[in-house]
Amino acid sequence: MSIGNYLFTSESVSEGHPDKISDQISDAILDECLKVDPLSRVACETMVTTGLVVIAGEITTNAQLDFQAIARKTIEEIGYNDSEMGFDYKSCGVLVTVDKQSQDIAQGVDDDKKEQGAGDQGMMFGFATNETPELMPSPILFSHKLVKKMAELRKSGKLPYLRPDSKSQVSVRYDEWKPVGVETVVISTQHAPKVSNKKIKEDLIKHVINPIIPEKLRAKKMKIHINPTGRFVIGGPQGDCGLTGRKIIVDTYGGYSRHGGGAFSGKDPSKVDRSAAYMGRYIAKNIVAAKLAERCEVQLAYAIGVAEPVSVFVDAFGTHKIDLNRIEKLIREHFDLRPAGIIKTLDLRKPRFRASAAYGHFGRTEKEFTWEKTDKATALKKAARL
Amino acid sequence: MSIGNYLFTSESVSEGHPDKISDQISDAILDECLKVDPLSRVACETMVTTGLVVIAGEITTNAQLDFQAIARKTIEEIGYNDSEMGFDYKSCGVLVTVDKQSQDIAQGVDDDKKEQGAGDQGMMFGFATNETPELMPSPILFSHKLVKKMAELRKSGKLPYLRPDSKSQVSVRYDEWKPVGVETVVISTQHAPKVSNKKIKEDLIKHVINPIIPEKLRAKKMKIHINPTGRFVIGGPQGDCGLTGRKIIVDTYGGYSRHGGGAFSGKDPSKVDRSAAYMGRYIAKNIVAAKLAERCEVQLAYAIGVAEPVSVFVDAFGTHKIDLNRIEKLIREHFDLRPAGIIKTLDLRKPRFRASAAYGHFGRTEKEFTWEKTDKATALKKAARL
Ligand SMILES: C[S@@+](CC[C@H](N)C(=O)[O-])C[C@H]1O[C@@H](n2cnc3c(N)ncnc32)[C@H](O)[C@@H]1O
Ligand SMILES: C[S@@+](CC[C@H](N)C(=O)[O-])C[C@H]1O[C@@H](n2cnc3c(N)ncnc32)[C@H](O)[C@@H]1O
Repeated sequence: MSIGNYLFTSESVSEGHPDKISDQISDAILDECLKVDPLSRVACETMVTTGLVVIAGEITTNAQLDFQAIARKTIEEIGYNDSEMGFDYKSCGVLVTVDKQSQDIAQGVDDDKKEQGAGDQGMMFGFATNETPELMPSPILFSHKLVKKMAELRKSGKLPYLRPDSKSQVSVRYDEWKPVGVETVVISTQHAPKVSNKKIKEDLIKHVINPIIPEKLRAKKMKIHINPTGRFVIGGPQGDCGLTGRKIIVDTYGGYSRHGGGAFSGKDPSKVDRSAAYMGRYIAKNIVAAKLAERCEVQLAYAIGVAEPVSVFVDAFGTHKIDLNRIEKLIREHFDLRPAGIIKTLDLRKPRFRASAAYGHFGRTEKEFTWEKTDKATALKKAARL
Repeated sequence: MSIGNYLFTSESVSEGHPDKISDQISDAILDECLKVDPLSRVACETMVTTGLVVIAGEITTNAQLDFQAIARKTIEEIGYNDSEMGFDYKSCGVLVTVDKQSQDIAQGVDDDKKEQGAGDQGMMFGFATNETPELMPSPILFSHKLVKKMAELRKSGKLPYLRPDSKSQVSVRYDEWKPVGVETVVISTQHAPKVSNKKIKEDLIKHVINPIIPEKLRAKKMKIHINPTGRFVIGGPQGDCGLTGRKIIVDTYGGYSRHGGGAFSGKDPSKVDRSAAYMGRYIAKNIVAAKLAERCEVQLAYAIGVAEPVSVFVDAFGTHKIDLNRIEKLIREHFDLRPAGIIKTLDLRKPRFRASAAYGHFGRTEKEFTWEKTDKATALKKAARL
């Protein structure tokens, strides 16, 4: 099937974006729980607004948590260290209203039953495409790289007027499945009051866009919008209230693939929203790495308290080299899709989550990201007799 | 392209689910603002947890808001009216920490400029498919109908032991694009402590599943999971912390189509996250109604402060009757995609949002849902000379 020539847009946000501050605090708390108690049950939701952090959710753990300290340290690391920026880790309020996991839920998912049930119902997608070495779609990868670069320039002091909150958006022209040109780049960044828009524009083109968007991929008349509102001094939680789990498309494939709706941050791996989405990525990536398909999308669905998925669905958008039903069979043979199996395969009872809470959960190369390994590709290839 | 035979799963949640309580409070506040001041700028985020509602965000309006009263009334209407249920509108705490819209953002999007810019960057999808009269995918439609039915039986007193919090999930077997059988139904509902699981199961099969899932669509061995954890007395905000904007896949197409990531509830129509997603649905639905395609997905993307979309992308999954480029051209001719144009076309400066905050924003028939009209189909058909 031809899908023609089209423009696809994805966006990303920096670690200083309010929704991402919330995600990072929630995952910092999760990591603290897992450090002490690998069986911690954690569902931690954070809200950040002008001068205030609210931490809520359900946590059952043997760890002693200093919520105040964890939240303040996370905000300090992000870089909100002066009330001049609208938010300061030293002086913001931190309100904690955390409950325990419901016993009705716990008894449905506890490990002491012969088989651990899923911690919730829901469906999750995993995706991979061979258009980049990371096996990720280009628009979201470029978007992440732009905001990450700005954070580096801010933290190194190279562009000292940059402040933590920023957003990027990249529109890529595709010819069928091949990215052929970047047509539009949008960047908004919080900044110190005294710098001119002209200087911000020049600096960001030179130090951010030029090094990130490869020259040969830039469309002839690539459009650039930098701080299109004209002013972005008020930022972070003062400009926009942030919540955990409100950047689920930035966290995954930038909208290029579908999404089941579940958020990741603050959730321990007994929650399939997180663990099965990671597993979906692991499966899809290994299938593409094994060259069984050029693009692959996997949907898994679970019922709360039940271990086996209620459905497994694979799509390869016409690029499969062997029958889709055979791919589905190979998945069931090579990957244990029960919650306990996923946790074991991906080694998820470790404090590895804070790093994932900014700049994407997928396409990452750091060692925490076990779901990015392609260690099943050889076995899959062999089994498929390709 | 053949996509074969596969199982697709979507889920829904009831108005008593904690994330949906938050959505409804946020939209009730938005409606109160719009009643008095159609130009209100509203970004209202709500958190609900054990015994507590936190209302935050950015609101600039001439309306005088009684946040306490709006929140309590919304919770009462949903049905949490006794602390025995874990939440009671009369006795819960309501904490308000609402700021004004950032002036830096306001000056970028204000109407007094010759052209109103988009209230944020971002991309949004709209979708329609001819598989149902509502032009919606079946799995999400069935899922909504199941939880809605339970709420009716609860409110009418027919099944008095039902409590407000519930979830549903439906797996539909497709043959290519045609739904051929419902293979699995999962329902979890909060209930009074004294009723037996056996009674809940029998009642829900008889009064909920049987009337909703058409007999001819039931797979021979349709699997049913009802309250698979075995017990669901603790529910609502006591069992699970809820946040506005955390059910964005339930709100849209159940994961059948893609998603740009933006949430809807609590956002006034200057926010393209909401208004352009509604416009995307309106466009896709009219294209399918005009029979220019059997399925249609539209992606729009905006830059903050800029009126024209930075990209427009249409996919018809091989079902288009005229060229995709021609469809894209027809869209640009027949639909005004600037924020002010969208607001005008869909008449969005009215208090019409509370109803959308539970049971889906799309596929609805009530008069508030202007984006469900197919009043452009005839003109599109004519222009396409079909
Ligand atoms: C535009 S705000 C969302 C709308 C906001 N809640 C309101 O009430 O208008 C979304 C994000 O845009 C970015 N932002 C904030 N102020 C901005 C400005 N003045 N110009 C451009 N982007 C801005 C921040 O990253 C913020 O989290
Ligand atoms: C399972 S909870 C999410 C996980 C939860 N935050 C935790 O800490 O385990 C998600 C939703 O499932 C439903 N739920 C709550 N208790 C349940 C139970 N005992 N059995 C089945 N579903 C339940 C409610 O609709 C709730 O909002």
